[in-house]
Amino acid sequence: MKLVIANKNYSSWSLRAWLALRATGQSFTEEQVLLGQPDSREQILKHSPSGRVPCLVDGSLLVWDSLAIIEYLAEQFPALWPEDRGERAVARSISAEMHSSFPALRSQMPMNIRRSLPGRGHSAESEADIARIVQIWNRCLARRTVEGPYLFGRFSGADAMFAPVCFRFQTYGVEPTGPAGTYLATMLAHPAMREWQAAAEQETAIVAADELPGQ
Amino acid sequence: MKLVIANKNYSSWSLRAWLALRATGQSFTEEQVLLGQPDSREQILKHSPSGRVPCLVDGSLLVWDSLAIIEYLAEQFPALWPEDRGERAVARSISAEMHSSFPALRSQMPMNIRRSLPGRGHSAESEADIARIVQIWNRCLARRTVEGPYLFGRFSGADAMFAPVCFRFQTYGVEPTGPAGTYLATMLAHPAMREWQAAAEQETAIVAADELPGQ
Repeated sequence: MKLVIANKNYSSWSLRAWLALRATGQSFTEEQVLLGQPDSREQILKHSPSGRVPCLVDGSLLVWDSLAIIEYLAEQFPALWPEDRGERAVARSISAEMHSSFPALRSQMPMNIRRSLPGRGHSAESEADIARIVQIWNRCLARRTVEGPYLFGRFSGADAMFAPVCFRFQTYGVEPTGPAGTYLATMLAHPAMREWQAAAEQETAIVAADELPGQ
Repeated sequence: MKLVIANKNYSSWSLRAWLALRATGQSFTEEQVLLGQPDSREQILKHSPSGRVPCLVDGSLLVWDSLAIIEYLAEQFPALWPEDRGERAVARSISAEMHSSFPALRSQMPMNIRRSLPGRGHSAESEADIARIVQIWNRCLARRTVEGPYLFGRFSGADAMFAPVCFRFQTYGVEPTGPAGTYLATMLAHPAMREWQAAAEQETAIVAADELPGQ
């Protein structure tokens, strides 16, 4: 299998699929298309019908969009979702909520792993998004039925979906307390998250939105 | 099971879950919360942890977000997704793309079933969204492997996800030609779509955005 991704520093959707693929233990190759280049869209369209990353290439089959990739992988590696039917439904509910919501957080606190921008991007709207995310985390952590430090005990597709938020919280200085804070630290210490962060820090390509002086 | 939905005239996300639930053949009850009322959010929060509809109530379990509801139903009614593994992956890819994309179409051509507003909402951005949706439909229809007039032959979760687009095309006078046009007509003639439309036409509550004179 091959996963087509964009810049590790910026591409939150790429991170989600990459973490899920890593969690399966399956070996895979990566192909990177850099964002913000004159031919970025053209390059991505060579791989992904939607013109967006990530895209999973499995033989002649193309699977695009992080959530569809997670479902595709979960059919072969069911441990990507919680074993209990009700827990699985909640894991998918919060994953889908993450997938379609939190526009203020996305636009005002874009993923930018190697930068430290505490205090930036905070507004009433982004704070409301943050409050809902912290509520989701705390509710999941309070009802865990399987042993483990993640949202549903062991690492699942739901953790992969919220992983970019963890990097955003780190960059913009969002510091939840209590169980959500412990979860954030656990996620940032996850070996695959550290590996992705190290790669993001070594990338040199930047996008236009990241060129503002003093940012 | 009970499905919590909003105004049938406006709530595109409610329609998706309702159609999927109808497609299972399972009996269910509806509970409606009207949008645009002073206590709408409070009323929705009584049912749905995300503060948004739809929310499926199955005993003590709450499942929210249209895509999570479809996955939950598909575990019991696998016919909601194509039987072939590759087709299922593509169905989920386009459903997830619908779930997170097409912001111009959403904002400039909001679902408003009982109105006829041809020519409204057309812009370079909404036309680009429309072009991609028509491309998705045509590609799916060209590669159907199962008999039937829908995106993957028989009616699936992917059709439910694109159903609100069909009503938008009807309202704003978007008329694709060829297979996509035939598919649009098929969807608008689907008995459950007609039933939903009839209910939308009988609703009297309107939201603020729909009060502009001459719209």
